[in-house]
Order: sequence, then C-alpha cells, then structure tokens
Amino acid sequence: MNNVRPIDLTGARVSDKFWGEYMELVRSQVIPYQWEALNDRIEGATPSHCIHNFRVAAGLEEGGFQGFVFQDSDLYKWLEAVAWSLAWHPDAKLEVLADETIDLIGAAQQPDGYLDTKYIIDGLENRFTDLMNNHELYCLGHMIEAAVAYYKATGKRRFMDIAIGYVDCVDSLFGPEEGKLKGYPGHEVAEMALVGLYKVTGEERFLKLAKYFVDQRGQSPLYFEEELKKRGRQNGWNGGTLGFQYYQAALPVREQTEAQGHSVRAVYLYSGIADVAAQTEDAQLFETCERLWNNLVNRRMYITGAIGSSAYGEAFTFDYDLPNDTVYGETCAAIGLCFFARRMFENTKDAKYMDVLERALYNGVISGMSLDGRKFFYVNPLEVLPEACEKDQNKRHVKYERQKWFGCACCPPNVARILSSLGAYAYQESDDTVFMSLFVGGTFSACLGGMHNRFSVTTDYPWDGTVKVKAESLERAEFSYAIRIPAWCADYQVKINGEAVEGTVDRGYLYLNRTWSEGDEIELTLNMPVELIAANPRIREDIGKAVVMRGPLVYCLEEADNGGQLQTVRLDPRAGFEVIRKPELLGGVNVIKTAGKAIDINAWDPDTPYRRYEAPVYKERELTFIPYYSWTNRTPGEMTVWVHTL
Amino acid sequence: MNNVRPIDLTGARVSDKFWGEYMELVRSQVIPYQWEALNDRIEGATPSHCIHNFRVAAGLEEGGFQGFVFQDSDLYKWLEAVAWSLAWHPDAKLEVLADETIDLIGAAQQPDGYLDTKYIIDGLENRFTDLMNNHELYCLGHMIEAAVAYYKATGKRRFMDIAIGYVDCVDSLFGPEEGKLKGYPGHEVAEMALVGLYKVTGEERFLKLAKYFVDQRGQSPLYFEEELKKRGRQNGWNGGTLGFQYYQAALPVREQTEAQGHSVRAVYLYSGIADVAAQTEDAQLFETCERLWNNLVNRRMYITGAIGSSAYGEAFTFDYDLPNDTVYGETCAAIGLCFFARRMFENTKDAKYMDVLERALYNGVISGMSLDGRKFFYVNPLEVLPEACEKDQNKRHVKYERQKWFGCACCPPNVARILSSLGAYAYQESDDTVFMSLFVGGTFSACLGGMHNRFSVTTDYPWDGTVKVKAESLERAEFSYAIRIPAWCADYQVKINGEAVEGTVDRGYLYLNRTWSEGDEIELTLNMPVELIAANPRIREDIGKAVVMRGPLVYCLEEADNGGQLQTVRLDPRAGFEVIRKPELLGGVNVIKTAGKAIDINAWDPDTPYRRYEAPVYKERELTFIPYYSWTNRTPGEMTVWVHTL
Ligand SMILES: [Zn+2]
Ligand SMILES: [Zn+2]
Repeated sequence: MNNVRPIDLTGARVSDKFWGEYMELVRSQVIPYQWEALNDRIEGATPSHCIHNFRVAAGLEEGGFQGFVFQDSDLYKWLEAVAWSLAWHPDAKLEVLADETIDLIGAAQQPDGYLDTKYIIDGLENRFTDLMNNHELYCLGHMIEAAVAYYKATGKRRFMDIAIGYVDCVDSLFGPEEGKLKGYPGHEVAEMALVGLYKVTGEERFLKLAKYFVDQRGQSPLYFEEELKKRGRQNGWNGGTLGFQYYQAALPVREQTEAQGHSVRAVYLYSGIADVAAQTEDAQLFETCERLWNNLVNRRMYITGAIGSSAYGEAFTFDYDLPNDTVYGETCAAIGLCFFARRMFENTKDAKYMDVLERALYNGVISGMSLDGRKFFYVNPLEVLPEACEKDQNKRHVKYERQKWFGCACCPPNVARILSSLGAYAYQESDDTVFMSLFVGGTFSACLGGMHNRFSVTTDYPWDGTVKVKAESLERAEFSYAIRIPAWCADYQVKINGEAVEGTVDRGYLYLNRTWSEGDEIELTLNMPVELIAANPRIREDIGKAVVMRGPLVYCLEEADNGGQLQTVRLDPRAGFEVIRKPELLGGVNVIKTAGKAIDINAWDPDTPYRRYEAPVYKERELTFIPYYSWTNRTPGEMTVWVHTL
Repeated sequence: MNNVRPIDLTGARVSDKFWGEYMELVRSQVIPYQWEALNDRIEGATPSHCIHNFRVAAGLEEGGFQGFVFQDSDLYKWLEAVAWSLAWHPDAKLEVLADETIDLIGAAQQPDGYLDTKYIIDGLENRFTDLMNNHELYCLGHMIEAAVAYYKATGKRRFMDIAIGYVDCVDSLFGPEEGKLKGYPGHEVAEMALVGLYKVTGEERFLKLAKYFVDQRGQSPLYFEEELKKRGRQNGWNGGTLGFQYYQAALPVREQTEAQGHSVRAVYLYSGIADVAAQTEDAQLFETCERLWNNLVNRRMYITGAIGSSAYGEAFTFDYDLPNDTVYGETCAAIGLCFFARRMFENTKDAKYMDVLERALYNGVISGMSLDGRKFFYVNPLEVLPEACEKDQNKRHVKYERQKWFGCACCPPNVARILSSLGAYAYQESDDTVFMSLFVGGTFSACLGGMHNRFSVTTDYPWDGTVKVKAESLERAEFSYAIRIPAWCADYQVKINGEAVEGTVDRGYLYLNRTWSEGDEIELTLNMPVELIAANPRIREDIGKAVVMRGPLVYCLEEADNGGQLQTVRLDPRAGFEVIRKPELLGGVNVIKTAGKAIDINAWDPDTPYRRYEAPVYKERELTFIPYYSWTNRTPGEMTVWVHTL
C-alpha cells in the first residue's frame, strides 16, 4: 500500500530565500536558544528543569523532579531538531554536544530499559499507574522519533539502542497477552514513532506494539476509567464535559467519526493510525483515517490550517464552530496536522492532503514563531483586539505578542523539528517517481529503486509562482517527476527545456513521465493571482466576510498598516488588488493593497450606543494586507484575517 | 435635592393586561412556589435550606448551616415580595404566614441584635471576619429592605424592629470612631437599604452608616486586603485578574470612573450612592453617580438593558465589549439597573433614566422569567445556538431554556420583588407633581403636600401607544401631571377632555400644569412604529446588524418561527413591517413580520469549508419577530436579537 516515502534528508539542502532563511534561523538561533532554555539559563523565562531532571535521574546531581511530567520530551524534540539540522548542516561541535546529551540520557536509563525521569526520581514503584495524565508513553514516543532521526542523520545507533531498550521494557509490560497491562498512551505520539522505528529496523514487534496501542484505545472496560477507579476517582479530563473524549478514548478508534478532544493528541493519533493502516494494509483503519480527516479538514479547520477552536481542553468543539477571536489553534496542532497530511498523501498519492499541509505550514505553523526565531505563539488567533486579550477572560489565552518561552514548552521545539526536516515534507520518492509536493528551492536526491537522482530547484515561492527544476545527476533515466498542482491554482504552464509539455494529472499531481537526461530543466509557472475567499455559510463567525489569499498565503489586516477599529473596514469584492514586493518589510514580503472602505466612526458619538438604523456611510480606505504568518512582528495591535465585505 | 418619591403602594392597583397579569402571576404562582422552595419541598430542585437554617439558628431544629453563605437573603427577598403583594392584594392567610416567618427570624436574633444564621450556627466568634466573601452585611441589607416594605405595606413594626436591632449591632461595631471596624459590605445593598430605613424612620444614624459604607469603600489600607492578610492570603476575588475591582473596591467610590466588577454588586452600590448623594446633598457624590451611569449605560449596556458582558466574575469588561452569545446579563443586574435608574430619576426628574429603566424592565428583566412564572434565567443572552451551549465551554453558562430553581437563587425572588412593587417604578410624586414614568394601567393615589389625588389609567401598552388617565378624586386641584415622553417616541399627541393641549417639556417629561377637576381625562397617544435600530460601530459584535424594536420592546428571531441557521438571515432595511396582534401566542403578543432574505445554505456543500468569493445568492424569506422577553417559551432553538442587514 505504502510505496511513497520522504526523501533522505542527509545531503538535501534547502536554500531558497523563504525556507532557507527559516532553516538557518532554526539552526543558528532556535537550537542554541532552546539548549540554553533546557539548561535553565534564559533570564526571565520559566525554567525548563529538563537537563536537571536527567542529571538527577542519572545520579549526577541532587534534587527532585521539577517541571511538567512530560518535561523529558522537550529534550527529545530538541535532539530531533538537532538531528535534522546536522543532516543538512554538519556541525562537529553540535554533534559532540548531542552525543554527550545522548550519553546523559543513557546514563539515566534503568537496567530494564525504563526511561522517564519523573518516575526514576520520584519512585519507580508508581510507574505506569497513571497513563491517562502522566506522559511516560508520550516521552517514549518522542524519544523514538528523535533517536530514529539521529540515526538517519548521523548513522549512529547509540540513541536508537537506548530507545529500543525503553520500547522493549514497554513491550514486555503492555499487550494483549494475559498478565500484561491493557493500557495505551494518554498523549499519543508513540504510535507513529513505533512505526518509524519499525521502518528503519524492520523489526515487526514495533509495528505490533503500535497497532496494539491504536486498537486498544477506547475499548471497554476503559483503561483510563479503571486507572481512575484505583485512585478512587471517576471523571475524565478535568472532571468536565470533555471526559475521555479529551484523550480520543471515548470510543474505539475504528468507531470514531469526528475529530474530538485535545487537538494535538488527536492529530498525533491520526498520524499513528495512518501509519499502522499503511504498514498493515488495514482498509478499515484507513477508512477511519479518511473519515476523521474529512470531518477535521472540512468542518473543523480554520483557513490558516489552525485546528482546535476552544481553549478549554485545547480542543475541538463541534462542526462549523470556528470563532476567530477565542480560537486555540495551537502551533503544535497545526504541526500535527502536517504529520497526518503527509502520511495520508504517502498512502494515497492524493494532492488534497498536501494542499492542507501547505495551508497549515505557510500559515498556522510558521505564525507560531517570530521572524527572529526568538519568540513563539502557543495560540494562533485569526482576530485580535489587544484590550480584549487583557480584559476578557474568554480571550486571556490569546496573546497579541509572541512570548519568549513557555513553562509548558511544547510548541517551540516542535516548530524547530518540523522546519529542520522540511525537505521530507517537500519531496517524496517511490520506486519510479519523484514527488515535488511543496515548492522549496535547494538540492535533493531521490532514491528510485536503489538508484540516486539528484535535482536542484530554484524558486522565489511563495512570492512568485515560477519553479525551475534541474536534473543535476541521474543514475536512472526513466522515471516520473510528479508535481503537485495546488488546489488554489487554476492556471499553470509547464515547460521542459523550454518546450511546453502536458503531462498527466492524477489526483492533483502532474506526472512528467519520460526518459530524462542530466541537465534537463523543468519550468513550472503557477499563476498566482490574489484571490478573495469566502467561508461556508454554516461557519457563523465568517458570514459576510472574506479573506485575501495569494498562492498558499493567507493575508491579514494589521493595525500597524491600517489603523484600529478593524471591524469598521469593508473589502470591496469589485476592487482590484495590487501586489507590491517589499524586500525591507517583515523579512521581505509581498504586501497586497486594495481600495476598500470604512465606516466613519467619528460620525457616531462615542456615548450613543444605539440609534435609528441608517444605511452606513463609508469613507474610502486603502487597505494593506500582510501575510498572516508575519503579523505582530512590529508594534502590536489589532489584527484580522476575515474582513467584512461590502 | 430629592423631592420626588414613589407613590404609596398600599391601595395602588395595577390591572392592565400586561403588568396586571405579571403581578398576578407573582402573587398566585411565584410567591407560593418560592415558599415551597425555601422549605425544600420542590422535587428535583437544589434544596434552599433557608428556612432550615433559620430554624436551627432559632434553636427549633438540630442541624448545621447549609447552602450558600447568603442564603438568608432569599427569605428576605421573598418577604419583600410578599409585602408588596399584600399592599395591593390583602391576603390574611399569607400575612399570617409572613408574620410567623418574621417571628422565626426574631427567634434567631441574638441578644445584641446580630442576625446571620451562618455564624449563629457555625460560631459567632468568627462573625465579621470575612466581609469580603461572606454576606453578613448583604443579608442585613435585604433584611432592611424587606422590613421597610413590610412596614409600608402592613403598618406592622415588628420586622422593622428586628432589622433595627441588627443595624444597631452593626452600627456599634463599624464606623470611623477609634476601635470600630473600618469595613463595608462585600456585596452591596445595605447602603440603599439603610437610606430607605432612614427615610421611613427619620433616624439620622442609619443615613450616617450608609454614608460611611459608601465613603469607606476602596480606601487605603484596603479593608479586604487586611482581612486576607489575617488569613495569610493575598489576592482579591478568585485570585484572578478582577481582584478587588470585582467588589468595586479597587478605588474609593468618588474616584471611580467606570462600571467595573460584578455587575449586580455594581448597580446595587450605585443605587446606594445615589441615595446617599440625594439625602446628604453631596454634589461630588452625585457627579460620581452620573459618571458611572454614563459609562455603564452608554458603553457597557446591551440593547435589552442587560449588563455584565462576561461570565467570568459575572462582570463588566471594557467599553463597547458586548458579545451577544457569551454575555452574562444576569437578571438581577438588570433589576439593579432599574433601582439605580429610578433613584437617578428621583434625583433629577430627567426622563433619560426612566428610558433606561423601561428598556431594562420590558426586556432584560422579564426575560428572566417564563410566561408561566415557574422557570427562570440567570443569564439573558441575545444570541443562542443550543449546540454551542452544550459543547462550547465559553457558552456553558448560557442556557437555552429557563431553569426550575437555582442553588444560588438570587434571580427568581428578585424578579418577584420588583414586579410586585411595579407601581413605584411607574408612578412618582412630589409636593406639586404626579409623574407617570411608565405606562401601566390601574389605579393609584399620589400624595401632593399631604393631599391625596386618585387616578385611574387605562392602556394596552406596550402593544398600543394610547394611554388614558382619569382624575378619579382630587383633594388638591392645582398640580402638574407629568408624562414621560419616551426617547423612542418621535411623535405623540395629548388631549385633555378631548381637546389637544401642548404642555411644557422639560428633560423628557411633558408637564400638564393646570387646575384639574374630578373626571378630567388625559388621552396620550404615543406613535409606535416598528423601528430598526443600529449599534455604535465601536460595538464590534453588532456591526452590520440591526435590531427590530417597537415601543419599548426589543424583538428577536426565534427558530420556532424562522427555522435555524439564523446567521444566514438578512433584514432588508427598505422592506416594510407588519404588526400582527396574536392574542393566543405567548400570552398575547404583537408579532412583527417583514420580507427578508436568507443565504441559500443548500447551495454550498457542507464539506466545502472555503471557496472563491462570490456575491451571496439570497432567497426571499419572510421573517417573524417576537418580543425578546417571550423567547424560549416554546420549542427551544436558535435565537438572535441582532440580525444582519442587507
Ligand atoms: Zn504546543
Ligand atoms: Zn441573580
């Protein structure tokens, strides 16, 4: 079923202006900064305690366990980002630091393989007694992810052996066999991680354990409920209305029909299901993925790719409930949606999944990091009034400026690991096809049935729709070069060596199948007009409004360019748009201008709340849109993605 | 300064269809039902424990204190409603029950006058140690209010003497003198109650204590903070962002400029300030009232008269922040706004206050009770999607059906006491003027310099704008009959004995000043067209929308008449309105119909969230509006007050 896989990241190099700068930022700023954070050396930031905990667990330092129960995972996510960074940018000093850190992790490992610093420090007798709330299996998952990445990037097995040690410990305790625990992760990630470990090692027991975690989830009697009973308690998450839905455990996975509960957990689970479905060729499980995908993407996703509309439980609510100002839209959830999307594409070769991935990546994911790589959003709102964030409890979770670091620091290292592995999202390979799913400039090799073809890609995407691909070296001449034609693109041209070609389009990919020669050049031109987008009228919050998009980018109005009181602004759907390149603005963006209107607020006395209706009087107002991801990198103020139309 | 006062309610009789039925409902349904509730005899309802607590405090029953710390106040509010009911409808059996209940209260009173069942039962050594959270002075206030009402209605002093005993106890412990406590109520009401007691007894010490409570509030060192320190704690309310603002105690009263904190507390305080300002002729204090009034009414009040836009703290947030779907809008807060408004009118003779009172009373107050008098709203939303109330934590406080009874039962008895004293809100007197502030049919007497004039009023208001007033008997012939001309009314006519007259208008009241004869008849005709009302564009939630009003009534769209998906509906400001009398509907209402439009939701695939903008396609849709107060008395469903306009 699954014969599509990401390209090998060692030797792949992203070097375009857009993503090249992001990857360099992660390498040169984010990774060193996060290392300082993990070591509690950032002044004014909540300490992480992460390295401290490992040192205590390893017997190198005195002290208690500190920080969140899932604190170990921050180090693993950092190591994963380091691994992917080393893959494209060898750095001996950083690799030594990583190796030493892996040694530290190894030093904390228990004789039976167990490795969670919280229980090593606080008492191993309580391990695996609160899978629902504590994150031992979540940390296991991130450890595997990092270890596999480190192995792929450096060829070193040490970290993977540590991880396999912990997996073996878990495998000996959990499973369908009598006497084993019938539990599964309270926060998913181990499922997809185990499949990744299976793929790299070929050892079936890892896949079997992943499948067990997927299939056991939500079965009766409910494991989490049994755990609670042992502690004399009853309710699910927070004693509230979400209950076990919060954990995607209210129903067995195969019976689930709606994206529910904590949104990061949800998309991590769905990624794991997609992986297990592919490796076990389980059609029912794959249908489950499609059903959940459709509900999530068609009825519960913001136009930015943000998901999770409620701060309560950082969770999904119900179909079409997508408030722009009280949204959660956690950065990690958009990242998790990318995980899920890439896997669904790999299972189907359908571009619709990559369309969503591109939407999330260019909007809801990178909105989570400031342009200097030093500040991060947890919550990615589509509409902000700073005063409301201060004074309205329903919006207190929404920040109008990115924050330095978080006590619960899941998002920043997640951004680092997805951006430093970007090539895997852009380019995939099968035995006879190279897939260009995202338009990312640089060089990469695809392995087609054991033969390596190398390509270079030149583009100024997303500012421009021209993408040039050159076959630099070819071990295999006959193959398909498949190009995703984005759903947003109504009109495109392809030339090979200057001559127009047609190709074959299948589920959104244009397949160029021929005998290639070294030096062959593909020139793709995606027509990229400014588009006005409307929302389904079932989405109450967006009614009467529109969004400006160009290519994959969602645009927004910010107070810095347009003044405040953005609710009074009106887009004129009949007015044209002007795209202006601004190399000096916000790291270099295209802004979009249009002749709009605005209600003259000064025509209404501030102390008259209500009066007889009169048709509104509008004044001309030039509107300046900037890419959503770049908002609040200047003076903070109001922002809105959805704008009222005339 | 204050020479306007409400009419004497004994002998006043409201008998029109609208309010007469409400008062009869309170008398025949609400008062008996609430008595059962106070005695824990309502099946399926949270027990009140109120009578139980009094019986335990009086030594008549064993047991502990149960229920909220302010549970005593429910009995006082019930007794106040009983008093006002007895004033217009003598009922020997009910009066015996009230007298016995007053004896029970007296039996619980301590030798020094103290009377709060919580501390009598749980330990008097802790009394007055937590004014901030516990409600001893709040219960005192409601006791006084009820006792004064009972004295006015029945002439019996027993209850007032009990109340004065408790006041004397408090007066001996609180005040500016050395050695006395420098505290004040954590929940205001005693301030206005004490002024009422002063007015009826003439005893200055009650006024002085009220003034002390007003002036001491928010002074440094902050009393509540000192209390907290003694318990080793720090934060104000709920440890959250509201802090001491929640209690209107973050600043001294005279320095306050914005309506802040818990909205019921706020308007109860402001009513007390207005009373103290009037009785002490304190111009600075009166300016404080005007400032707070202006902020509250011009920038923080819903069109229904609901106040308190946030469920968090049941509180005000910031200027123009008036979300329709997450609103709190507690019934008690709208009632408290009526208290404040009536006092401001009495201090100024300015109709603008009574305009707000009428708005709140006909909309946000009576929306709190079902048409059968058996179910109540705490929260009065202006927009409801039932699914959101179930699944969105931000709207969990919003109910789409009124509830039977509440554990914290402040609202139902508050509705009962304001409705049963309605005459005092409708008619006021001064030494030479009768004020008709609300258009309520029935008979009443005004006392003008000791002489009693009796009038009868006939009207079908609010369904019709004609009001006929007849001078039934006159002890004094020369006086002014002052009629409020509502701000909503652009066009009216007045006749006396069939002949058109002009009169003099001063601050919204039309003064008819002449020598009257018995049998003289005034005929007022208020032109009452359907009006479309818009909100200040600074109110973000209402932009692009309008409200249908007729006379004092705010109308709404309900799913029962219009189907769901109300966000797709469009009002056409150019379409006419049809007013249709429906005697059988919702207790007899006028519905309003208009030719509107609606987006054809079926033209958009439910699984396509976003697509290229196209001008919306509308279908014709007849819209049927019902009075807001009457919503959800049929099959529950969606409801909206603000409707998008074309
Ligand atoms: Zn996160
Ligand atoms: Zn209430």
